[in-house]
Amino acid sequence: MTGNEPAEDPTAARSLRDTAREGEVRFDGPPPAYDDAGLVFIGRIRSPWKTCETCPKNRRAALEAGETGVLEIDPRWRPALAGLAVGDVVWCLTFLDGADRDLALQKPRHSGDVRATFTLRSPARPNPIGLHLARIEAIDPEAGRVTIDAVDVLDGTPLLDIKPYYPSVDAPSAGTSEG
Amino acid sequence: MTGNEPAEDPTAARSLRDTAREGEVRFDGPPPAYDDAGLVFIGRIRSPWKTCETCPKNRRAALEAGETGVLEIDPRWRPALAGLAVGDVVWCLTFLDGADRDLALQKPRHSGDVRATFTLRSPARPNPIGLHLARIEAIDPEAGRVTIDAVDVLDGTPLLDIKPYYPSVDAPSAGTSEG
Repeated sequence: MTGNEPAEDPTAARSLRDTAREGEVRFDGPPPAYDDAGLVFIGRIRSPWKTCETCPKNRRAALEAGETGVLEIDPRWRPALAGLAVGDVVWCLTFLDGADRDLALQKPRHSGDVRATFTLRSPARPNPIGLHLARIEAIDPEAGRVTIDAVDVLDGTPLLDIKPYYPSVDAPSAGTSEG
Repeated sequence: MTGNEPAEDPTAARSLRDTAREGEVRFDGPPPAYDDAGLVFIGRIRSPWKTCETCPKNRRAALEAGETGVLEIDPRWRPALAGLAVGDVVWCLTFLDGADRDLALQKPRHSGDVRATFTLRSPARPNPIGLHLARIEAIDPEAGRVTIDAVDVLDGTPLLDIKPYYPSVDAPSAGTSEG
């Protein structure tokens, strides 16, 4: 242990779900090779959540839980943090590596309905990329540590990207009907 | 030609940028293997834009341009579209495969400033995943065609995911100061 390593395997506590729930449907055919493009993990998210059962299901529930999270950015990528500041709202993109990738129709844990994957925010999808809005509460670019106001992923979840939130492009136009 | 194939190589018109602009800084060291995780392209986005110079830089500019786009979903993934409807607002996640992946500081085409990558929405980033809000204008799940109200990517851009937009988790809390 160097002190820079997680105290435990961050993936150890994950509940992988390899059994379908009633009414769920898998995509046809054998799984694809998932080699159309490759990703690099820029770091990990540290969170208080060690199991799917305790992890808040979204940002709203995470804010209610009142716990912060920390983006731990690997040294190579830290220069790209310059200029991010406390109070900034950002998108965090994650790779939800415990998720089932071959469900076409699924029955979410928190709902009784079977629904099509692209109508849900469930981690189970062909490319299990998580999209999480967060507000920066503290940042140390040199140490690669960004504290965020709420976290709805398991401890150790791989981080793919940080993007600024822009109301001008990230919110539907005013006067529209979605709610 | 079967009629299902694009009329031309969708990547042929891309302007890859392999030269740095003044003040730009690359990440240290050789490029990583980009093999921490793999992606499958679920389809392609058809757009009117064949070159970076003509492509709108974001949703706001795309709406001003007044052209629609089409998500073409490959047959395997079409069952996951069931229940999406005209008027729904969704996130489209893309893989911006012409982007430079190793810029830490960069000088955007539309700006004179050199800025850190994670403070920008530029396609150039370690994992060039694009995040695009769109409203569904027409949908044919069986044909795998979803027409969206605006498009800010080049024709043929690979599609990774479709997620519903939820104001409750995708907008900062009311009463906050970001604008």
